Amino acid sequence: MHVRASDPGRRVGARDVVEALVHEIGSGALPPGARLPPVRVLEAQLGLSKNTVQAAYDELVARGLLDARAREGVFVLAPSLPREPPAAQRRPAMARWAAPLVEPYPQGGVFELGSVFIDPELLPRERLAECFRAAMRDGGPAPFYHPQGYPPLRAAIAERLRDRGIAADADAIVVTVGSQQALDIVARALQTRTVAIEDPGYRYVVPLLRSLGHRVVGLPLDPFAGLDLDDWSQRLARERPGLLYATTSFHNPTGYSYSSSELMRLLALSAEHEVALMEDDWGSDMLSGSEYRPTLRALGGERVLYVNSFTKKLLPSLRLGFALAPSEAIAALVAAKRTSVLGGNLLSEMALFEFLDRGYYDTHLRELQRALDERYQACLDCLRQLMPAAVRWTTPGGGPTLWLELPAGTDAARLRARMLDRGIALEPGDANFLGPAHLSGFRIGYARHAPAALARALGALAEEIAKAS
Amino acid sequence: MHVRASDPGRRVGARDVVEALVHEIGSGALPPGARLPPVRVLEAQLGLSKNTVQAAYDELVARGLLDARAREGVFVLAPSLPREPPAAQRRPAMARWAAPLVEPYPQGGVFELGSVFIDPELLPRERLAECFRAAMRDGGPAPFYHPQGYPPLRAAIAERLRDRGIAADADAIVVTVGSQQALDIVARALQTRTVAIEDPGYRYVVPLLRSLGHRVVGLPLDPFAGLDLDDWSQRLARERPGLLYATTSFHNPTGYSYSSSELMRLLALSAEHEVALMEDDWGSDMLSGSEYRPTLRALGGERVLYVNSFTKKLLPSLRLGFALAPSEAIAALVAAKRTSVLGGNLLSEMALFEFLDRGYYDTHLRELQRALDERYQACLDCLRQLMPAAVRWTTPGGGPTLWLELPAGTDAARLRARMLDRGIALEPGDANFLGPAHLSGFRIGYARHAPAALARALGALAEEIAKAS
Repeated sequence: MHVRASDPGRRVGARDVVEALVHEIGSGALPPGARLPPVRVLEAQLGLSKNTVQAAYDELVARGLLDARAREGVFVLAPSLPREPPAAQRRPAMARWAAPLVEPYPQGGVFELGSVFIDPELLPRERLAECFRAAMRDGGPAPFYHPQGYPPLRAAIAERLRDRGIAADADAIVVTVGSQQALDIVARALQTRTVAIEDPGYRYVVPLLRSLGHRVVGLPLDPFAGLDLDDWSQRLARERPGLLYATTSFHNPTGYSYSSSELMRLLALSAEHEVALMEDDWGSDMLSGSEYRPTLRALGGERVLYVNSFTKKLLPSLRLGFALAPSEAIAALVAAKRTSVLGGNLLSEMALFEFLDRGYYDTHLRELQRALDERYQACLDCLRQLMPAAVRWTTPGGGPTLWLELPAGTDAARLRARMLDRGIALEPGDANFLGPAHLSGFRIGYARHAPAALARALGALAEEIAKAS
Repeated sequence: MHVRASDPGRRVGARDVVEALVHEIGSGALPPGARLPPVRVLEAQLGLSKNTVQAAYDELVARGLLDARAREGVFVLAPSLPREPPAAQRRPAMARWAAPLVEPYPQGGVFELGSVFIDPELLPRERLAECFRAAMRDGGPAPFYHPQGYPPLRAAIAERLRDRGIAADADAIVVTVGSQQALDIVARALQTRTVAIEDPGYRYVVPLLRSLGHRVVGLPLDPFAGLDLDDWSQRLARERPGLLYATTSFHNPTGYSYSSSELMRLLALSAEHEVALMEDDWGSDMLSGSEYRPTLRALGGERVLYVNSFTKKLLPSLRLGFALAPSEAIAALVAAKRTSVLGGNLLSEMALFEFLDRGYYDTHLRELQRALDERYQACLDCLRQLMPAAVRWTTPGGGPTLWLELPAGTDAARLRARMLDRGIALEPGDANFLGPAHLSGFRIGYARHAPAALARALGALAEEIAKAS
């Protein structure tokens, strides 16, 4: 209930309370039987003395509008004023909504053969829990967040990047809710409205960009033939994108990694066509030996916008990634982050700092890379033994997934349906394409599954491919 | 480095490795002195036998391109092919960025007299830490998140809402990164492009809406006079917004709460002008007796979109809020959330579930409301004793802040500067206005500060107002 003073002075009087209640009862806002706030509650809300509210209630009881029942409270007795038609019977308007086109989230219950996730058995859950406990050491999580991200975490990330040959400063890092939010704040703050992406490409970037009003153009990528950068150059000249988003290590969904000369050529194309570069480096931490792999950011310097994520490699539900931004972009990216979420989850940022600071991440990556290398080799062995001769696959050298290309003429949709009948879900490979699909296949996720289980699923796949060919 | 097979078969041979290296050395991508991956690394990456890579290295050493130094590794000796101009010397293009207009984040070091935050001393940090420990009980945080939010948390929120008279189902709740992300996903999924908001209003909603392409129209709100809903009706008829965003309890920045009859009239306006309603109920949990306060959602039913947040009342850095959505909006809101962040921080969602499930939130709110009521009364006492007669203020009945209105003719900017000289920061009250400011004042935050410290700051303010009048 709201009561306003009848004169512009400071104090609300008993008469004001009476008038407000008469109005609310008369309008039907307080229907018969409604219970009124106790005197002490209304006095606290309005900053009044108890006498004022009690006097108002007494008057309304005397006027027959309220009923004061001992030990029960004060109730509305009956309307005594002409009532307006009950407004609540007129239903409020509905808004119109539209969903960005994203595929259904996996519901479980099937064997996700193309999963890009890593087997939770390989994730450092106990050590993360230890770091969360450490972050809560001093009386629980700290109350306030830093909108750009916990400063010690940003410093630790910058140090890690410098160790990998990437010039980086803590002030140039914006911590995000996974790398997806890094893409989101880039898409929000970017002033040019056309973005070029690899085709096929990361499936969640297209609805993100389009829902924010960007035009998306595709740059065909064939993981078996490598990049056709002459073709890319022609497309860049024709489409004039302002930003080119490239997953240079372990491209999703094909597993392709750019060669050094391709990176160099891409930097030259960036200068020639005035297209800025955003590099998504989610994959290199999963590849053993990737300390030898250069990045666009390392070769091209500060102007290249670099994004990465910890969550895939540590724990998907942790939701922590970051952008390493050119200096002229940082204020805009932080503002975009603040307008969308104000700030991030400090406790998780503190726990991740502990994890990095204690050297756990490096230890974990070594163990993870070794495990993924083993699963990768086991997967390759399976494929070589099981698959019909016309089946091809990429050899990413490790990581979580490869691309399996079906023999020409295989009905991929029918194959998916038959596999689903056997409890095995294949990714809809063509969903990764922006233009016409120039590949016909799907991801195989060897990181998500123990080798024996994967071998059984690949055996079933080989059977169904043989039947379908 | 990337190596592709020279024939469309499966295996990369030593000749392919040689050709790739010759190309990379020739193009300058591998400059003289660059160290090559060890044989074991390249073999793992490419899925080759050791003999293949070793044979390639041997051949390149023989051709004078590589230098194999014992116990050091394999290095590029010198370029023997004509080099392209070094592409890396052509600097990659820069992107153009724009920052949404948000005020600077408080840097600390001054007394924030208008802070909307609650004193961390009043927040349940130890009990939250206990709940985080409970959430990590079984081997650390769970690996995967639910994109709509942890189901038990959604069920607990729905139950809490039902206890307050709001029909709610767990399936209709989307957990968000604070209520700011609830506003963000609404703004992303909403198909109509004009949004009406209170003027003055919550400061972060305008840059959010505008940066996503919405037109924003203001509905003047005078906390001393109440809502002029005839004026609102005319504006709604003229501007035809698709959504009206209203902070019905404890409006920010004025502390105003809508009366029941104002809520009823607003529902009628929603039906009449076909403007959907979004209710921000961040404030009512802070007001003692607010279980007697109706909400738009309770009165208007399922079509009203309702948002709330736990973080202000529990811990700002927790960043957890939610939207309770009409059924036809849920898929769009979840898709908007997935495109922007994929999913939320599961561990925090689990810890918050524990906090609700153990009844800690209700206990905490009772204690918090009592503490805020005391601080509110102490603040009112101070204002009555200290302020010159022409100063007015709102009486929100509790909560964290009220609006202090300066005497006509006071130079608010000069007052701010003089207060800042005394180490006390005032909010820029006019920053809350969309149209011309019809109030001249600012928030007073009594929740953030212990009463004695607040009294000193209010004393300084009273002195400066007296000087300025």
